[in-house]
Amino acid sequence: MTLRAKHLLGIAHLAPDEITAILDLAEHYAAMNRSGEKHGEALRGLTQVNMFFENSTRTQASFELAGKRLGADVMNMAMQASSIKKGETLLDTALTLNAMHPDLLVVRHPHSGAVDLLAQKVNCAVLNAGDGRHEHPTQALLDALTIRRHKGRLHRLTVAICGDVAHSRVARSNILLLNRMEARVRLVGPPTLVPSAFRDLGCEVTHDMAEGLKDADVVMMLRLQRERMDGGFIPSEREYFHRYGLDAEKLSLARPDAIVMHPGPMNRGVEIDSATADDPSRSVITEQVEMGVAVRMAAMDLLAQNLKAERAACV
Amino acid sequence: MTLRAKHLLGIAHLAPDEITAILDLAEHYAAMNRSGEKHGEALRGLTQVNMFFENSTRTQASFELAGKRLGADVMNMAMQASSIKKGETLLDTALTLNAMHPDLLVVRHPHSGAVDLLAQKVNCAVLNAGDGRHEHPTQALLDALTIRRHKGRLHRLTVAICGDVAHSRVARSNILLLNRMEARVRLVGPPTLVPSAFRDLGCEVTHDMAEGLKDADVVMMLRLQRERMDGGFIPSEREYFHRYGLDAEKLSLARPDAIVMHPGPMNRGVEIDSATADDPSRSVITEQVEMGVAVRMAAMDLLAQNLKAERAACV
Amino acid sequence: MTLRAKHLLGIAHLAPDEITAILDLAEHYAAMNRSGEKHGEALRGLTQVNMFFENSTRTQASFELAGKRLGADVMNMAMQASSIKKGETLLDTALTLNAMHPDLLVVRHPHSGAVDLLAQKVNCAVLNAGDGRHEHPTQALLDALTIRRHKGRLHRLTVAICGDVAHSRVARSNILLLNRMEARVRLVGPPTLVPSAFRDLGCEVTHDMAEGLKDADVVMMLRLQRERMDGGFIPSEREYFHRYGLDAEKLSLARPDAIVMHPGPMNRGVEIDSATADDPSRSVITEQVEMGVAVRMAAMDLLAQNLKAERAACV
Repeated sequence: MTLRAKHLLGIAHLAPDEITAILDLAEHYAAMNRSGEKHGEALRGLTQVNMFFENSTRTQASFELAGKRLGADVMNMAMQASSIKKGETLLDTALTLNAMHPDLLVVRHPHSGAVDLLAQKVNCAVLNAGDGRHEHPTQALLDALTIRRHKGRLHRLTVAICGDVAHSRVARSNILLLNRMEARVRLVGPPTLVPSAFRDLGCEVTHDMAEGLKDADVVMMLRLQRERMDGGFIPSEREYFHRYGLDAEKLSLARPDAIVMHPGPMNRGVEIDSATADDPSRSVITEQVEMGVAVRMAAMDLLAQNLKAERAACV
Repeated sequence: MTLRAKHLLGIAHLAPDEITAILDLAEHYAAMNRSGEKHGEALRGLTQVNMFFENSTRTQASFELAGKRLGADVMNMAMQASSIKKGETLLDTALTLNAMHPDLLVVRHPHSGAVDLLAQKVNCAVLNAGDGRHEHPTQALLDALTIRRHKGRLHRLTVAICGDVAHSRVARSNILLLNRMEARVRLVGPPTLVPSAFRDLGCEVTHDMAEGLKDADVVMMLRLQRERMDGGFIPSEREYFHRYGLDAEKLSLARPDAIVMHPGPMNRGVEIDSATADDPSRSVITEQVEMGVAVRMAAMDLLAQNLKAERAACV
Repeated sequence: MTLRAKHLLGIAHLAPDEITAILDLAEHYAAMNRSGEKHGEALRGLTQVNMFFENSTRTQASFELAGKRLGADVMNMAMQASSIKKGETLLDTALTLNAMHPDLLVVRHPHSGAVDLLAQKVNCAVLNAGDGRHEHPTQALLDALTIRRHKGRLHRLTVAICGDVAHSRVARSNILLLNRMEARVRLVGPPTLVPSAFRDLGCEVTHDMAEGLKDADVVMMLRLQRERMDGGFIPSEREYFHRYGLDAEKLSLARPDAIVMHPGPMNRGVEIDSATADDPSRSVITEQVEMGVAVRMAAMDLLAQNLKAERAACV
């Protein structure tokens, strides 16, 4: 099983069997990462370039480790310090980089759609590491893998996604993936952060945590994206926590075996309290990080297989 | 054929047969980079250190990829964030780094001559990645390779170098190389940016684009180096483009098969308009970037051969 | 011979035979680094992460080269630009990183004790690359190796550590190591920078350079840590040099074969004058840097052996 597309730009372009293929291979890499034997050769001789137009130490580190563990030559480009300061356009940057013949290009960009645009201009495989409020596909895949490891499946689970849905590409990619895999998605948060329009994506929407968490199998908290709230309503942290922050009391409304997730970095005491975040019987937050490396190894491995097949066909 | 010098500090130190040797080997690496098989072993076991005292994402990326594709261990040192802030002198930095036994040291520095000075204090091979207004030898070599691929030769070509010659190490290294390879060099631009004194380097100098582009085989536009213009005349962008910016009309004065070059990053609408920059039948600007990686692979390979021979002789 | 502890957090935890084991293996790597053949395989397949919460181009470069020369996959995390800005706690950072399964974690942190705390939360081996005013064990080890190469031993040597002892983790780790290896340690400097309380560590304390340097085998100058002096007495540079800066005249009070050391970067003309710093017959300052790479290779090699043994035992 391989991926049909050349790039991994968003969950929107993935069929259920492709999602399953990534998760299955990621499971294999997760086991490898836990063992002493960490080295694969799937990307040996290939060049991976990480272009982050927005800082993200975590996600960049996850992609970097994933590439290095599969033998790729990995290069990080600090795009803040780069030619964009000299007035170069995104397309010139893309064309310049493309001329250096990378094989895998991992891109994060503050503008929705920028990564898709870039992918049209280059020959290599592009992975979207987050673009604006649009998509963050590897986050949704690592979340799905973490859920599947605990629940054994994705379909017919009830997943409550809580908090700042409006500004979150993490939420958007998760909604797309969970819908596609036939989970039930509930969005929970204040009306400003969870507009009713999200019902059009096939989700339940509620502004009440009690209602939202009821019988949930998975409680996925989101980070308050203050940096993306421009001018709109910004709740006080204390009030926000009181109404929408996760603590043991609110969690007791979910299923007794419900797992707790957060994409990190957490604002402890705002979206979630420390007792819940650190509860080893409920929280799978560090496992999400662990699965992140595995999912990125799987995605890059599959895209590299496509590249090699494409090149073999050209000879 | 090997290089006679231990370092690659400038075109001024290269004989024509050395230039040809670099270009020939670079041609081989250019073919390798275009194929799926990108890995050489010429630098396996060697340590390459990139010390950039001036930001340059492009050039640093080009050297980094070149080294990694040949198997080197590559380390980037961000010199802004470093000991220089703590008051360390350039020479102490050089001695410190030298004690760590690098094999190849790639240096960019804002002061002309700083790289030469540094090379005197270290045991490894030093490559100048641009020093002040002095030299940028790998840029001239990649330009020469690009020209040779399109014109089949360098001698007896007419190359018009247009724009901010005065502040440009790119222009200086190109003039030296093209003169040495018996091309005809014409410098074109306003008197403040193309002083008559450049005639002493064996170039034609003109302040008129029509005259400058007439019958040119190659039109090489330069970047306006506003950051290096201290206090002097700074033209308005609109006026500059009107008189010296390249567009289809001005280009029509050159030979019908003239190629268009720019070292990047471009100020579109200032030095060159987009139609010309993106014209696939005339512009070779992205090919220049591509040849940059190949030329740097070739230069580092040849310098490493010298290092190994020197060490074998010491045993 | 292996190390007993899983981590290298400080000299305080090392027994004399462990110190000797590191120095002996480092001697082997020092010879390898001087040869053309720089590559070991001791860390092949292992992931080394450098987490520097405080800038240090030199120390980071030394650890990076050490890891790459032993075949590790090395990843640098720029912690200033990271999640800590987003309000993440040190422990969340540690747990996040730990979930990515690094093998060796090299940490520098501005707060004393932060590295020990972090080590309690992760599964990998942690190396302290300097924490606050607490410890900097690899610096003390490289200093010891340099001394041993010149004096043939450590015991019964007289080592004068001069200058800003109070703010120096370098001094602290050196005092611990030299005491443990039965050298005599003298601390020399103004009362504000060399408080009498240091006598409790088993050192002589003097505020007079003549007395301090008399018959010393080793003169170790420290860097003035202005950045760590908060509010207290800051001497004028000229006055400081006059009383405590090392020059040929003061050095003549030490043994005629005394060596001169400095951890770098030097403030020339403040702690030491250039004639003394650059005197090839006395100064071993660049050799300290060289031994730094070797000592870090040795320490990481030994810690990796422990990791592998631990993992084999778990199977």
